[in-house]
Amino acid sequence: MSGQDHIAWIAADWGTTNLRIWALDAANTTVLHKASARGMSTLAPDEFEAALLELIDECLSENRTTPVIICGMAGSRQGWREAPYRETPCAPPGVGNATIMEPVDPRLSVYILPGIKQTAPADVMRGEETQIAGFLSDHHSYTGLICLPGTHTKWVVLEEGIITRFRTCMTGEVFALLKNKSVLQHSLAQEGYCDTSFEAAVKEITRSPERLTSELFGIRASSLIAGQTPEAATGRLSGLLIGAELAAVASEFDLQNTAILGKDQLSRVYGAALGILGHQSALLDAESYTVKGLTLAYEAHLKETK
Amino acid sequence: MSGQDHIAWIAADWGTTNLRIWALDAANTTVLHKASARGMSTLAPDEFEAALLELIDECLSENRTTPVIICGMAGSRQGWREAPYRETPCAPPGVGNATIMEPVDPRLSVYILPGIKQTAPADVMRGEETQIAGFLSDHHSYTGLICLPGTHTKWVVLEEGIITRFRTCMTGEVFALLKNKSVLQHSLAQEGYCDTSFEAAVKEITRSPERLTSELFGIRASSLIAGQTPEAATGRLSGLLIGAELAAVASEFDLQNTAILGKDQLSRVYGAALGILGHQSALLDAESYTVKGLTLAYEAHLKETK
Repeated sequence: MSGQDHIAWIAADWGTTNLRIWALDAANTTVLHKASARGMSTLAPDEFEAALLELIDECLSENRTTPVIICGMAGSRQGWREAPYRETPCAPPGVGNATIMEPVDPRLSVYILPGIKQTAPADVMRGEETQIAGFLSDHHSYTGLICLPGTHTKWVVLEEGIITRFRTCMTGEVFALLKNKSVLQHSLAQEGYCDTSFEAAVKEITRSPERLTSELFGIRASSLIAGQTPEAATGRLSGLLIGAELAAVASEFDLQNTAILGKDQLSRVYGAALGILGHQSALLDAESYTVKGLTLAYEAHLKETK
Repeated sequence: MSGQDHIAWIAADWGTTNLRIWALDAANTTVLHKASARGMSTLAPDEFEAALLELIDECLSENRTTPVIICGMAGSRQGWREAPYRETPCAPPGVGNATIMEPVDPRLSVYILPGIKQTAPADVMRGEETQIAGFLSDHHSYTGLICLPGTHTKWVVLEEGIITRFRTCMTGEVFALLKNKSVLQHSLAQEGYCDTSFEAAVKEITRSPERLTSELFGIRASSLIAGQTPEAATGRLSGLLIGAELAAVASEFDLQNTAILGKDQLSRVYGAALGILGHQSALLDAESYTVKGLTLAYEAHLKETK
């Protein structure tokens, strides 16, 4: 027996910019967690297996196959192989809908979970459905709104555990582009932002969301001629963009009592913005739900293969 | 006499990305036009004179100085030297407000025209005020709205030839960032766009401008799952952004009978969007007004130095 025989399977969240893996034992306890920057966008299809092995080689045993359950953008058209979407309304898809890969390395068996699509209005998700599956294992038959903040923030309506509608907003990506690539870069703080300025911007733009387009350049102008600090400028940009996002989703969804599944800092910002508008929200850790969702898929796989 | 003695002065429009010059004779007829990509953003303050000489050296005569009148971002804080702003309400500033440089080359005398600032809401322009001065020489005491489309589109209210209010929208820069740097790049056509898709997007977003934020990612999703063509995707992105801009400025200004000062293609797109909303507009060539505005400044300079 090799020293790795206590590792029963590998969970992987393979996004656009990062690959994160967890090695778990037969009791589904994480014994190792690793990450790399070899996300989907950096890899050609024939490079995925090597990128995965780089992280997990030490977890594999000879003479048996270790299942690897993957969610996220690795299953997109630009990824390892396109894993077909399930369509709303649907429960988060399980391993029975996974795309089974045939890796070159005989120590591996690889399953890529599908994403979810919505026909009208057109929308897609990959990865968030697995976090939602994990969330539902703690909140059976949940009915309500879930916000999953990120580069592409998802707002998802669940009705008794079924994903009925969702909406993606590119706010995180637009913020990063404006902060790093636009004329506003000269005005913004690299780190930190002013809460007061954030709060004022959220209030202002949710009252008059049609003004988003005409308010952005004012951030530059206020720095040039009105002594606005970099921290105030960053707070204002963040408040305008997240406030406009809330105005957009409020036209479709009831924002009261939103469950926010995300990382600490970004979740807190969304929670603060909802609070400014008088909406309560609960902050929940997305990463643990990712592992939970992948664990559910692994357990279903075990049952299937018994 | 050298062969360049017929050149009386040089007009220069020095923007963020380009430097364009016109050499004119004593009758203010253009005898030479040249351009380079040595815009303000590519130059340190001590590199401006050399970048200018690269283009105009052949126009200069020994034993006398040739005036160079400059408008645009060369006068910004990141430019050759900051030319202080005039403040609204004001007429377009003339050469009497110019910053006079002392170039190393004795064949040159250099004047940088000021920009205009507005305190509340904070806004700035550099270059457009000179185009407006040129426009006013053909339309004395104009009262109405002028749109100057570009990377940072300006909407300017004139009352009897006085600039009373203006608003900058970063629509052009945001469009370029989304087209070239965001996840939408995979969905968009590099050239050309679909008019029908543009028109539908303008109508849709001006009816519900709060939805801009939530509509952008749908462009990607429609390409992935609904067979949207690249040309339709580009038309939709352009229509959403310009439509949202029109909704924003319509909340401040009367868009009826707008004079559009710009380049052919971009002016036509703005004119089309205004037309879809039932507003008439007139398309006017910005470049000729830039030269006219600089010519007015040169003539004032002549009078002053006589």
